[in-house]
Amino acid sequence: MTAAAGHFITLEGIEGVGKTTNIEFVRGLLEARGLEVIVTREPGGTPLGEEIRELLLDHRHDAMSADAELLLMFAARAQHIAQVIRPALAAGKWVLCDRYTDATFAYQGGGRGLGFERVARLADWVHHDLWPDLTLLLDLPVAAGLERAGRRNSADRFERERSDFFERVRDAYLRLAQREPRRVRIVAADAPLEQVQARLRAVMTEWLTTRID
Amino acid sequence: MTAAAGHFITLEGIEGVGKTTNIEFVRGLLEARGLEVIVTREPGGTPLGEEIRELLLDHRHDAMSADAELLLMFAARAQHIAQVIRPALAAGKWVLCDRYTDATFAYQGGGRGLGFERVARLADWVHHDLWPDLTLLLDLPVAAGLERAGRRNSADRFERERSDFFERVRDAYLRLAQREPRRVRIVAADAPLEQVQARLRAVMTEWLTTRID
Repeated sequence: MTAAAGHFITLEGIEGVGKTTNIEFVRGLLEARGLEVIVTREPGGTPLGEEIRELLLDHRHDAMSADAELLLMFAARAQHIAQVIRPALAAGKWVLCDRYTDATFAYQGGGRGLGFERVARLADWVHHDLWPDLTLLLDLPVAAGLERAGRRNSADRFERERSDFFERVRDAYLRLAQREPRRVRIVAADAPLEQVQARLRAVMTEWLTTRID
Repeated sequence: MTAAAGHFITLEGIEGVGKTTNIEFVRGLLEARGLEVIVTREPGGTPLGEEIRELLLDHRHDAMSADAELLLMFAARAQHIAQVIRPALAAGKWVLCDRYTDATFAYQGGGRGLGFERVARLADWVHHDLWPDLTLLLDLPVAAGLERAGRRNSADRFERERSDFFERVRDAYLRLAQREPRRVRIVAADAPLEQVQARLRAVMTEWLTTRID
């Protein structure tokens, strides 16, 4: 739980899992309750962060070392926390973020094989105990996610990775959910959109009803 | 001492101290002995690193958080180490670098007030024991350095800092030299160029003669 007045919710999942569509759905659920919501994303969310995001996705940087990639992710995050997340939480708002540190554990720790311990040391350095109150993990078999993502125009530096990379990412996400079942809720996304959103609504309703803060 | 076959020498100092001119002088000293030298710089030294350097110096990013700045510095360094420094050292070359982690201790740890301990944790994460064999610290009173730097065309995000910032940077550099007197050699730069280079020559000759490796 964040110490601040607001609430912090993140959406996670591999490519093609439907984060962009569903984050708007969750925003609608919260706003229907009269809550003030900020929707943001990582890497990015600030002018500096968006420039770092471009570096991270750029094909020209195929020689990027795994450590440099991880440090860039956290540089964008540090700026995002200082400029957007902490101020919004301090003002009592609800922050809804497309990816956060769980993605770094999954992509860099799992996908790139850096391991959770190495990511955890940086996470502790950058944001210490600023973890989401709730993380919605949209889960989908890798083949289905890649098929959906493949329908988009051009693949970026991450989307071009092979399916075994995404298998490691998905596996890492599921391990995170297992480690922290109260914070990280798995929402199966291998169904038509209405059904996925019915699941999201159920998780949100239960969480909003039962949480103590 | 680096474990690798080559040797690693860095030049450090505040703005206007003459690093660019004197790094070429040191290169000449080494090449005159038939040594194979690579001259590089930080932040930068790789295509990715140079793009990160542009972000770091860009005036538009005046709202950059101190943590984000520090992580970007180390992201550029991680790439530089992986792509340039380690391969060169492994091939037995002499690497001559304009700034390295001492600069991060001085500018971010001292100048920005993040403290040495916070910088040290990241340095350990990024390069563990890959420290220079020798660091030449060109030292100059801040007023003299700023006057020299002011003669250049346009000031970047660091050069626009006020003199109390540079006093903290210089003070941090001198503390580093005091902590590691064998590695970090102070070369007084408040003299005409020929005299500074005579001092550099003396330090280099003594170091090349007496080091054991």
